[in-house]
Amino acid sequence: MGTFSRASAFAGDSNLKEDHVADMLTEEGKRVIRLNRGDPTVYFPTDRYMIEAYVKALKAGRTGYSNVKGVLGLREAIARRYFRRYNVSYDADDIIITNGVSEGLAMLNAALIDANDRAVIFRPYYTLYYPGIKTRGGVPVIERYMEKDGWSVDLDGLRKSLKGSRKRSKYLLITNPNNPTGTVLGEKVLKEIVEIAKDHDLILISDEIYDEIVFNGAKFTSMSRLAKGVPHVILNGASKCLDATGFRIGFMIIPGNDRISRELRDIVTGFARLRICANTTAQYAVAEGLNRNAEHERASRAMANEIGRRADYMARKVNGSGYMDVVRPQGAYYIFPRVDTNAFGMKDDLEFVDRLLKEEGVELTGGSSFGEKEHLRIVTLAPKDILELAINRITAFCKRHSK
Amino acid sequence: MGTFSRASAFAGDSNLKEDHVADMLTEEGKRVIRLNRGDPTVYFPTDRYMIEAYVKALKAGRTGYSNVKGVLGLREAIARRYFRRYNVSYDADDIIITNGVSEGLAMLNAALIDANDRAVIFRPYYTLYYPGIKTRGGVPVIERYMEKDGWSVDLDGLRKSLKGSRKRSKYLLITNPNNPTGTVLGEKVLKEIVEIAKDHDLILISDEIYDEIVFNGAKFTSMSRLAKGVPHVILNGASKCLDATGFRIGFMIIPGNDRISRELRDIVTGFARLRICANTTAQYAVAEGLNRNAEHERASRAMANEIGRRADYMARKVNGSGYMDVVRPQGAYYIFPRVDTNAFGMKDDLEFVDRLLKEEGVELTGGSSFGEKEHLRIVTLAPKDILELAINRITAFCKRHSK
Repeated sequence: MGTFSRASAFAGDSNLKEDHVADMLTEEGKRVIRLNRGDPTVYFPTDRYMIEAYVKALKAGRTGYSNVKGVLGLREAIARRYFRRYNVSYDADDIIITNGVSEGLAMLNAALIDANDRAVIFRPYYTLYYPGIKTRGGVPVIERYMEKDGWSVDLDGLRKSLKGSRKRSKYLLITNPNNPTGTVLGEKVLKEIVEIAKDHDLILISDEIYDEIVFNGAKFTSMSRLAKGVPHVILNGASKCLDATGFRIGFMIIPGNDRISRELRDIVTGFARLRICANTTAQYAVAEGLNRNAEHERASRAMANEIGRRADYMARKVNGSGYMDVVRPQGAYYIFPRVDTNAFGMKDDLEFVDRLLKEEGVELTGGSSFGEKEHLRIVTLAPKDILELAINRITAFCKRHSK
Repeated sequence: MGTFSRASAFAGDSNLKEDHVADMLTEEGKRVIRLNRGDPTVYFPTDRYMIEAYVKALKAGRTGYSNVKGVLGLREAIARRYFRRYNVSYDADDIIITNGVSEGLAMLNAALIDANDRAVIFRPYYTLYYPGIKTRGGVPVIERYMEKDGWSVDLDGLRKSLKGSRKRSKYLLITNPNNPTGTVLGEKVLKEIVEIAKDHDLILISDEIYDEIVFNGAKFTSMSRLAKGVPHVILNGASKCLDATGFRIGFMIIPGNDRISRELRDIVTGFARLRICANTTAQYAVAEGLNRNAEHERASRAMANEIGRRADYMARKVNGSGYMDVVRPQGAYYIFPRVDTNAFGMKDDLEFVDRLLKEEGVELTGGSSFGEKEHLRIVTLAPKDILELAINRITAFCKRHSK
């Protein structure tokens, strides 16, 4: 018997190891441009009304334990948000506040995945989905977003694969708007996914953390509007739409009165009990932030528009470089260009990213971190002058290594 | 194949279900005395200097993601605290900030426990230890704190049991000062536990979340001083000693350069990556709180002394009631009297607690929640007038049901 669990092998995340190199370069006095971190607060300071709400909650003494499912006022504010935005009615009891969406996902995996159980995710996938399943002993069934269709879902491939599988999967998880591709899925595709989930008895999980960061005329449709009748979970939180990543306030909505939904809600609440509660003061702050709707909408719209301009700018520059191709983004704040690293005499995207950082001081994330080789994820939150500097360095790097 | 994981069966925590009854009674206009929640902020508002530090961090814009292991300044402040208090030298790198101690425990279980792996805990145990092991498929090996020895460790029983076991356990977890018994373990016992851990190749985990809440002349010794040479983990946080439960800032220290300690540190960091970071602003607040040492020591000492007076008062009253016996507490803020529920015509401590709540509006926790039947946990944080009202109601209840 070894000392460590089998799960331990899957806990690491290479995505973040480059940061040590970047830190060292910075210490040596090099100016590193970090286009690897999806943290909007770096370039868009958290809005004043959110800070004020947080200070108010602190001064009101909201510093003790709170309900395991979260502060009631916050859950009610979230229910009102969904009615306002998507015209769906939720009960506060359908909502569970989590330490970020990542904790919500961990609870869902704990509730659903035993050794060798399957769950469907799509690649390129958000970095944490894969180890989330593996650390519970599960088997990720990896379906495809198709680059040639603007990273939309490969519905035929999905149907074929599910039909051919001898073992049922427990859930199907989609991300919309998408990290790392910046895609917003259309309503027609989403409706088909609901049908597929229904046909194959899959719990549908929709990670919609970027639902207010949509641009270029794209139309976002929340699964909350479409998935009625199918057991489903909506994941969201304050990190992106309220520009408050460090608050660590996520939430999940598990609506429905069918047996599966009711049990899942109870079990997830059980797992929530095992960590007592999320940061109490931040929950009051987020509740008040959501309630100050006019201010929030104004700030959120302005941020999404500006992010759209930056993302568009970077996508045009990348496509114009002659070394990479990228699908035009519609949401979130990532672009995910394809790159032929072999043309630069490199083994793969990880070598490309590593050498780009060391030689040019630009930090990106290799597509391999998202299960998609020969791609790069570029975070497009920085202002244009920084993005311009970065793309110039990237282009010079490609030119220098071009065979 | 069922829908839910085997772990799901162990996620619930009956300890908290009584709260619904208490909420209902409160809504009906009854004054419920809740002596079931270990939240000091209810009676001792979080100190002004902590609130000020939190507000300052908010206004300085500390609202983004932070390091997966935690804000460096906080980890350095914790290292200084351990040098100041216990004369041990830690590197910031030995310390990982968690969403409360509960998250630290979950990470340790994820890192160490596979299906059927064993881990040693002592009963009565803190409620979350047991499901923490079971939800990873593990087997809790339950050793004893002995009531007749003031709830000290049954060293002979422990040695015998470990020698007789065919399968090695992964870790041994002690709580000092103890929840639910209020015991502070002596240095001699702690040293023997270190020897036993060494002899049986067990990772030693010491939950010391109440290390500043010690009274009645008891002397607390931190495992950090004794466990050198044995792979060990110290669990602590801001909840109790900084009177800030709702901040959800815990930490674990994994020192040592032996192979096991190094690997454990890496693996736990890997699990920390899967949830990105703890609340960033609260980490800066706690760092400044710890750095304002003079103010902190003054506030902490005053709180511990007052809690000691209340705990002592309640223990005397309980012993004087003629219906229960309790060991004199030395730390934390719990007393754990023994009660013969059969003498009141009741089936067990859970029925006792349930009926006491409904009939008298006093909420306690049954010993069964801690693996120890025929006991009651009473939280002794409330001021004397409330404790007096509670003990009068409890005594009246016992008298009425006495056969």
